[in-house]
Amino acid sequence: MTDAAKPLLLRALAGEVLPRPPIWLMRQAGRYLPEYRELRSRAKDFIRFCLSPDMAAEATLQPMRRFPLDAAIVFADILLIPLALGQKVWFEEGEGPRLGPLPKVADLRLALDGALALLATVGETLADVREELEPHRALIGFAGAPWTVATYMIEGGSSRDRSKARALAVSDPGQVDALIEVLVEATARYLELQAASGADVLKLFDSWTDLLPEDEFERLVTQPHARIVARLRQAGVTQPVIGFPRGCGALVEGYAERAGVDAVALDVQAPFALGQRLQRRLTIQGALDPLLLRAGGEALDRRVRSMLEAWSPGPYVFNLGHGILPDTPPANVARVVELVTGFGASR
Amino acid sequence: MTDAAKPLLLRALAGEVLPRPPIWLMRQAGRYLPEYRELRSRAKDFIRFCLSPDMAAEATLQPMRRFPLDAAIVFADILLIPLALGQKVWFEEGEGPRLGPLPKVADLRLALDGALALLATVGETLADVREELEPHRALIGFAGAPWTVATYMIEGGSSRDRSKARALAVSDPGQVDALIEVLVEATARYLELQAASGADVLKLFDSWTDLLPEDEFERLVTQPHARIVARLRQAGVTQPVIGFPRGCGALVEGYAERAGVDAVALDVQAPFALGQRLQRRLTIQGALDPLLLRAGGEALDRRVRSMLEAWSPGPYVFNLGHGILPDTPPANVARVVELVTGFGASR
Repeated sequence: MTDAAKPLLLRALAGEVLPRPPIWLMRQAGRYLPEYRELRSRAKDFIRFCLSPDMAAEATLQPMRRFPLDAAIVFADILLIPLALGQKVWFEEGEGPRLGPLPKVADLRLALDGALALLATVGETLADVREELEPHRALIGFAGAPWTVATYMIEGGSSRDRSKARALAVSDPGQVDALIEVLVEATARYLELQAASGADVLKLFDSWTDLLPEDEFERLVTQPHARIVARLRQAGVTQPVIGFPRGCGALVEGYAERAGVDAVALDVQAPFALGQRLQRRLTIQGALDPLLLRAGGEALDRRVRSMLEAWSPGPYVFNLGHGILPDTPPANVARVVELVTGFGASR
Repeated sequence: MTDAAKPLLLRALAGEVLPRPPIWLMRQAGRYLPEYRELRSRAKDFIRFCLSPDMAAEATLQPMRRFPLDAAIVFADILLIPLALGQKVWFEEGEGPRLGPLPKVADLRLALDGALALLATVGETLADVREELEPHRALIGFAGAPWTVATYMIEGGSSRDRSKARALAVSDPGQVDALIEVLVEATARYLELQAASGADVLKLFDSWTDLLPEDEFERLVTQPHARIVARLRQAGVTQPVIGFPRGCGALVEGYAERAGVDAVALDVQAPFALGQRLQRRLTIQGALDPLLLRAGGEALDRRVRSMLEAWSPGPYVFNLGHGILPDTPPANVARVVELVTGFGASR
């Protein structure tokens, strides 16, 4: 594939500085789109929706038809891994996810080999999407990272500040380390399957890395990510990996040095200067505030322009710092895509 | 006062590197102490408890009798300011604070002059404590910083992620800026009163600065802190000010440059290297994880020692990165105080 035919996202992730950054948006497939709400209403159960390749592929492709985005991200949920490992997972209408009692680590380990059978449906979704998606647009596969998945597994759902999981990590480090290790293995196998099914890029979402001290962050986030990436490379997976240690503040610098990822996704808080320092080492992605995307107007335009000015001189992928909010006007998304895709032309 | 007679905390806040850092702990007066629970049970209403100089002084002094701490912090609540400005504030048993509807900014402004009358009881508490406290132990006065207080005023209580307040800051910046400005004025006057009543040190608690992008953080946190400190200095207040922008991650570096504070309190997430960079400019305080303090044991000892090794070569005040948890064994607090106060002797 010549460089010009290569999807912009892959060029940016290889460290190339482009006339304008590629753009995709976290939760670009989702409730803010009326066509998504219509599709979603056809399946009663959210888990079944994620595990139906037809519906998940359609959800993945919906934003690609509306907007000239540079990448699609497979529609799935980070809690498919605990589900595949035998923990009960369900979604209450209007609430977050709920999980049954945490299985013993030994039982989770025994479930590893069978887990890929359930997750194989995500591979089918990827294959379907890759077939329909134009070659110049990249396809992203993803998984929840071990610590974030572990917090849900331990807390039994989402929680205000993950205090139960953080307390357990301190009071029973052996149990939590063993849980993380099973999740490292499951995540590596799951991402390998996604790469083999058509994903051009892989992303590790670690949504709950705030409130961890430096030593805990190294142990629960950076090192598990590094082990997953090493496992993937040993298995011959060459797709670039984006790591997203959300909420980790200044710890992102050590993460970028040691997690082994090709790019680091920044959250809304990341200062411009920090992003620029990171760009000397790797590609950065981020980090528009979803609240500003929802609000729209002149302030949104200004912020998008200042992000482009600050970060497009280095290897950069434009994105949000967190997912699109359900009540975001699609017109605001169109506006941001227009500003970013038109950026190179205006210089 | 000779340097040797000066409280250790004041010496550290003046930038002095000491054989061992002074120690005090956020929420050192509180529910983890049986004597506090006994005292608290005598007053039905938490607000009335805070506004009773007798009880508040007693609560302030309780941990000082138990532990050889280097500073007391006046027992009060950050929501006394909105209460004094005319917004209804109450505490539901076992829940967080609750606030009535947000008054108009014009009405809050009109309430400014009268507000100090209610807050004067905190001055009485400080005067009582200062009289009883040994001269070598410092007394800290404090206030909630404008952004954090504004989030409670806008949300009507505590909230999962302050999304209503953050959304308003983006969608109606004029209203939020006007609210912040009234709070800057109220906070400066309140801290001036505390300084005049015997506080040796002043602290600004900004507990909810996470999730703010760089430009919003500058506007809602750093600049309001800088204006409060400037107002205090103009009024002739010479007491050192500690700023605590909790959860602000890498943004703490710009904060330390521009907020005008004498010391910055770090949260649990702050990397050692970041703290060391900050120490070239000012004194740092922090940042033991309250979860680890609660858990105790060898891991606690190890972490305390590594914090002392990393940060005591610069100007440093030992503390937690957040308040003591209610179910913390007092013996663990005693252990940490012993490790820190004994540190100089062991070298």
